[in-house]
Amino acid sequence: MASNSFGQIFRITTWGESHGKGIGVVIDGCPAGLALSEDEINAELDLRVTGKNRFTSPRKEKDYAEIYSGVFAGKTTGAPVSIVIHNHDADSSKYEPIKDLLRPGHANYTYLEKYGVFDYRGGGRSSARETACRVAAGAVAKKLLAHFGVKTAASIQSIGSVDADLVAQELPQLKQKIYDHPLYCADTSAGKKMMAELDKAIEEGDSLGGIIQFSAIGLPVGIGDPVYEKLEANLAKAMMSLPATKGMSLGEGFAASRMQGSEHNDLFTENKSLVTNHAGGTLGGISTGECITGQVAFKPTSSIKKVQATANLAGKKADFTLPTGSRHDPCVAIRAVPVVESMLALVLADALLVNRAAKL
Amino acid sequence: MASNSFGQIFRITTWGESHGKGIGVVIDGCPAGLALSEDEINAELDLRVTGKNRFTSPRKEKDYAEIYSGVFAGKTTGAPVSIVIHNHDADSSKYEPIKDLLRPGHANYTYLEKYGVFDYRGGGRSSARETACRVAAGAVAKKLLAHFGVKTAASIQSIGSVDADLVAQELPQLKQKIYDHPLYCADTSAGKKMMAELDKAIEEGDSLGGIIQFSAIGLPVGIGDPVYEKLEANLAKAMMSLPATKGMSLGEGFAASRMQGSEHNDLFTENKSLVTNHAGGTLGGISTGECITGQVAFKPTSSIKKVQATANLAGKKADFTLPTGSRHDPCVAIRAVPVVESMLALVLADALLVNRAAKL
Amino acid sequence: MASNSFGQIFRITTWGESHGKGIGVVIDGCPAGLALSEDEINAELDLRVTGKNRFTSPRKEKDYAEIYSGVFAGKTTGAPVSIVIHNHDADSSKYEPIKDLLRPGHANYTYLEKYGVFDYRGGGRSSARETACRVAAGAVAKKLLAHFGVKTAASIQSIGSVDADLVAQELPQLKQKIYDHPLYCADTSAGKKMMAELDKAIEEGDSLGGIIQFSAIGLPVGIGDPVYEKLEANLAKAMMSLPATKGMSLGEGFAASRMQGSEHNDLFTENKSLVTNHAGGTLGGISTGECITGQVAFKPTSSIKKVQATANLAGKKADFTLPTGSRHDPCVAIRAVPVVESMLALVLADALLVNRAAKL
Amino acid sequence: MASNSFGQIFRITTWGESHGKGIGVVIDGCPAGLALSEDEINAELDLRVTGKNRFTSPRKEKDYAEIYSGVFAGKTTGAPVSIVIHNHDADSSKYEPIKDLLRPGHANYTYLEKYGVFDYRGGGRSSARETACRVAAGAVAKKLLAHFGVKTAASIQSIGSVDADLVAQELPQLKQKIYDHPLYCADTSAGKKMMAELDKAIEEGDSLGGIIQFSAIGLPVGIGDPVYEKLEANLAKAMMSLPATKGMSLGEGFAASRMQGSEHNDLFTENKSLVTNHAGGTLGGISTGECITGQVAFKPTSSIKKVQATANLAGKKADFTLPTGSRHDPCVAIRAVPVVESMLALVLADALLVNRAAKL
Repeated sequence: MASNSFGQIFRITTWGESHGKGIGVVIDGCPAGLALSEDEINAELDLRVTGKNRFTSPRKEKDYAEIYSGVFAGKTTGAPVSIVIHNHDADSSKYEPIKDLLRPGHANYTYLEKYGVFDYRGGGRSSARETACRVAAGAVAKKLLAHFGVKTAASIQSIGSVDADLVAQELPQLKQKIYDHPLYCADTSAGKKMMAELDKAIEEGDSLGGIIQFSAIGLPVGIGDPVYEKLEANLAKAMMSLPATKGMSLGEGFAASRMQGSEHNDLFTENKSLVTNHAGGTLGGISTGECITGQVAFKPTSSIKKVQATANLAGKKADFTLPTGSRHDPCVAIRAVPVVESMLALVLADALLVNRAAKL
Repeated sequence: MASNSFGQIFRITTWGESHGKGIGVVIDGCPAGLALSEDEINAELDLRVTGKNRFTSPRKEKDYAEIYSGVFAGKTTGAPVSIVIHNHDADSSKYEPIKDLLRPGHANYTYLEKYGVFDYRGGGRSSARETACRVAAGAVAKKLLAHFGVKTAASIQSIGSVDADLVAQELPQLKQKIYDHPLYCADTSAGKKMMAELDKAIEEGDSLGGIIQFSAIGLPVGIGDPVYEKLEANLAKAMMSLPATKGMSLGEGFAASRMQGSEHNDLFTENKSLVTNHAGGTLGGISTGECITGQVAFKPTSSIKKVQATANLAGKKADFTLPTGSRHDPCVAIRAVPVVESMLALVLADALLVNRAAKL
Repeated sequence: MASNSFGQIFRITTWGESHGKGIGVVIDGCPAGLALSEDEINAELDLRVTGKNRFTSPRKEKDYAEIYSGVFAGKTTGAPVSIVIHNHDADSSKYEPIKDLLRPGHANYTYLEKYGVFDYRGGGRSSARETACRVAAGAVAKKLLAHFGVKTAASIQSIGSVDADLVAQELPQLKQKIYDHPLYCADTSAGKKMMAELDKAIEEGDSLGGIIQFSAIGLPVGIGDPVYEKLEANLAKAMMSLPATKGMSLGEGFAASRMQGSEHNDLFTENKSLVTNHAGGTLGGISTGECITGQVAFKPTSSIKKVQATANLAGKKADFTLPTGSRHDPCVAIRAVPVVESMLALVLADALLVNRAAKL
Repeated sequence: MASNSFGQIFRITTWGESHGKGIGVVIDGCPAGLALSEDEINAELDLRVTGKNRFTSPRKEKDYAEIYSGVFAGKTTGAPVSIVIHNHDADSSKYEPIKDLLRPGHANYTYLEKYGVFDYRGGGRSSARETACRVAAGAVAKKLLAHFGVKTAASIQSIGSVDADLVAQELPQLKQKIYDHPLYCADTSAGKKMMAELDKAIEEGDSLGGIIQFSAIGLPVGIGDPVYEKLEANLAKAMMSLPATKGMSLGEGFAASRMQGSEHNDLFTENKSLVTNHAGGTLGGISTGECITGQVAFKPTSSIKKVQATANLAGKKADFTLPTGSRHDPCVAIRAVPVVESMLALVLADALLVNRAAKL
């Protein structure tokens, strides 16, 4: 039921598995007249490329996005922008040994029960590879946001027990620094400690979780809708639709539940701006003009080198061992940074377009 | 843009403000043949009634839901179920003194900027009163869930600094106990400490935040959809569409980001059930058959007795003082318990119906 | 599955049966700032009132629409506009004799098979009474269209074998004349012959079909969308969603299929307007700036005084005789005129709002 | 605003222009477990291939559809089925002479006004080439219908002044005969006269319109929804979303408006089937179990060899002459036959899936 689409006006539909001919995204509802090139999209895609360093899995394939439609003479035409990323020939034989096993922390069991079939070769639609399409679409959304003067960013906020010290509204200015960092973390000093914890986890054949903070500046007041289409509701759906997410929050987040009203309320100054931004940029689902900021919690990578007890499809006890040669990120949150930023951009671009019908 | 609707097949549309003729909800897509009475709906509505004790505001009006359509001879017909709750005559004169002030923590500023108009009398669509319609619709969703063998519950998990000790899968069996408790908390011993903190906040003219835990048992494996319609994504949207929410999580939630993969992965037993339920009942957006459970964080009530610095519509400094006679809950999370349970029921009922088209 | 909603941005949801407490419509997505009163809505509702003359059934009840929400100080607020029309006490005992019969030309059989239940008392959701809600919503859409300089109209084009002589772009100027006419026909001379045919049909206890022509002027060029949301596609859906419709066409309609390209093509003048308007106001689904005009065909009223052979629920032969006291329009097309105009208004209002997101 | 998508559960999104890298369709919501091959899709695509004879334009390119995703081991997986048809290298230089002209009967003017840009090379999204994607998706829908025992068909009913003599419920049995006929007409005797009229039009450099009849048998009673999602409403939208359509009707269509109630009403027999099928297979939007049948009217091809007066973008008078080497069908209805059948299949497949949630 349209479970592969997101957004109301700026609406994306993603498709593809890692072992078919390719993956892709159709963007329907991008306004005409937006300058757009394949290079811009591929520059964003490169941010989630694997194998940059020891903290992301060393798969070698490089994704290349091709614009199949919707752009004429360098600008969008109002027609759907179809982006296709062809798959490289993939050897699926290594998955043979695990094809009859229920994989801990993975979706093969639930997919099998739901659909009666599961493409065991690469995770099917539950694979993180689907998020490449979100990043490609996010690149277009960011171009739209730039037109409206909105800037987005995301950064690792924590890995394992180490927390970064981030200032939400500064993140969009630090994008270059963030994406140059091996962990996509704006706080290099905390980053060092994170790397130490990661190295330890790698050594143990284990994995770590992490939290990502996202920020957007420049969004005017009045964007977002009441009740079920609140900006925070759509951000929550966007973030919790990402693989491996376990929580999402805005502003002070769960910490807000420990504060008092007199402490949490952001007060208005005489020019109608806010003294503080505990709320994270919205009131009643609608933007206040302050920085939109929140957090997304990722569980530790489910694929670990340690042997795990499980069952097979026949319901018998079995051991689950990662196939030889399969390599996985020790912390999925790292490569999720550009994906979280993309989802932020998709939500805001859509909300800006939706807002055009609010007033006479 | 349909910002007052929620759900795909079991789809609700709510309407109304506290100072118009009434509020209501239209449920479109409820299957035919479900036994349904006004009494059942009103029993649920009574759970969020005000003035039960000193911890909820002593407004006296009692909501009464009337079924206007969609039920014939005690059963749903497949036609939309329209439920209307008439408003009592409301004195709006007390709002006069604050009608030109930007209200800290409230949505009157953002609504004004968005729409150019704001009904200052009662919060308009941003009022918590809208949630009465969600509870009325939730009552219907719960009847549908009962037909499928699914039971839901919610409980206060924390207020201020006090945490309750809850066991997710036990909550649905404790519903009577929870709704009999003044704070809707399953842990009476923690409840006593919460009351002490609340009394202190009331005395200071301040307010507290809180966290609600929700649980559902009996949901079969395979419910929920991949990618953008993941069960956790729709739960996140549902919960973050509630007034005053600042965060939402599933299973271990943000704590999962501090765990290791070997610790967080739920292992399969030989009968394909799970040894633990750190995930909170889903894998890849689809139910595992375990208890669906998560948390929702509420900020402290924005309306407090303390005087707050603000600005008026003209952009001049002003003091914000609550109108005489206006009374507010010291902690909005308490009365939100049945609302959170209703949103949980709405998401699950919809997902169960959507799932019918998954396989041949 | 949202089968009671229509429209993308200006979205209506109707509910109610003739034998419940009332019927109504929720309009979600009406921009803020539109002046709106109950009187304006009721003036439109009066146009489809029964019993004005011998050509419409003499039921005595008069509908009165109440605005329950969404309007403050005489203007829309951006919140859903909920309109409720209470039912008058209805005697349903007269339907007892036919409750077990399959009613020729009616939907009781198909509803029964679909839902397993049917409210035999008044047709349930298949009743023409539902269209009162469309007219109420259409009144709001027309106010929005007026703001954009668009005027709509509809007129009887044929009843039985008699055709009116209508000029599409003149209809909006003739509205008063049309709605003053007993048959809602702009051509009074043809109207006389129609009345004669109707009188004959009434005498025979039979009924006639008819065609309605609709027109809108003032719609700017560029409204409507490519591919599946073409203006003509949405007009077709709107019109064919009305009870008793059997066909819909635009411009020359079916006659276009008998023309040659050189004859049907509308040529551009030097100021980019069109010499003719065979197309009926669109090219490729998007408005040309010319009059939007088309036709809707209605079958003859299914309820006739003649006895008809049928079967009962048990599958035995039976005779169908209209219940004593039940009276029906000899031609449903007449009272459908304001309904067709309302659907036209709803489609155009929505398309105008949707169009705001087309360009940067 | 999702203007390139159609359907609720079985939902297609088409993309692409004739002068980009390709065109394609994403089918979201196809149930898992349906056997599907590229061959089956390409067999359907071949039906709308050009240049079969003198009545369809002799472009030489042959479309080949590739399944990019959603099929594993020969069966659908529940994931989106993405189908890509690569474009052949197209010479766009021949369009240079007409790039500044408003093209009679074409959408370049309306697109330009709407989007501020128009890809003059091949019609962009208004090109009939988009319908190849509908046929590809229709091939999948037909496989789904076959699973449910439903058979579809379409045939030319008229070209110019010549009418075929067709029996609706026989068409699905005549598919082979129809698609073997040069005009896709089940009545070969009428077909001869049509060819004579077509030859005359070709000789004159002109074009003809036509009507297509469609039929489906085997659809059970109870499919389709009340009010706005009536089966006939969705069929109307589907058909009127096709390029060059000017009207759509069901059963007796516009002729129903000339009949009397006693004549048009289909009477029930004792086994609850219907004696006649004037209604065309639905009552109140829901299938009766009889043959679903209706008509679609196509205007004459807009591209003709005759020189036509027009204006250029600057608003000056100009002559429009078809570019040398461009060839067009003398009657667009012919190649639209498999497209109409595909739209019928898409509507019915979707309605069958939607219906699963109607009852408990």
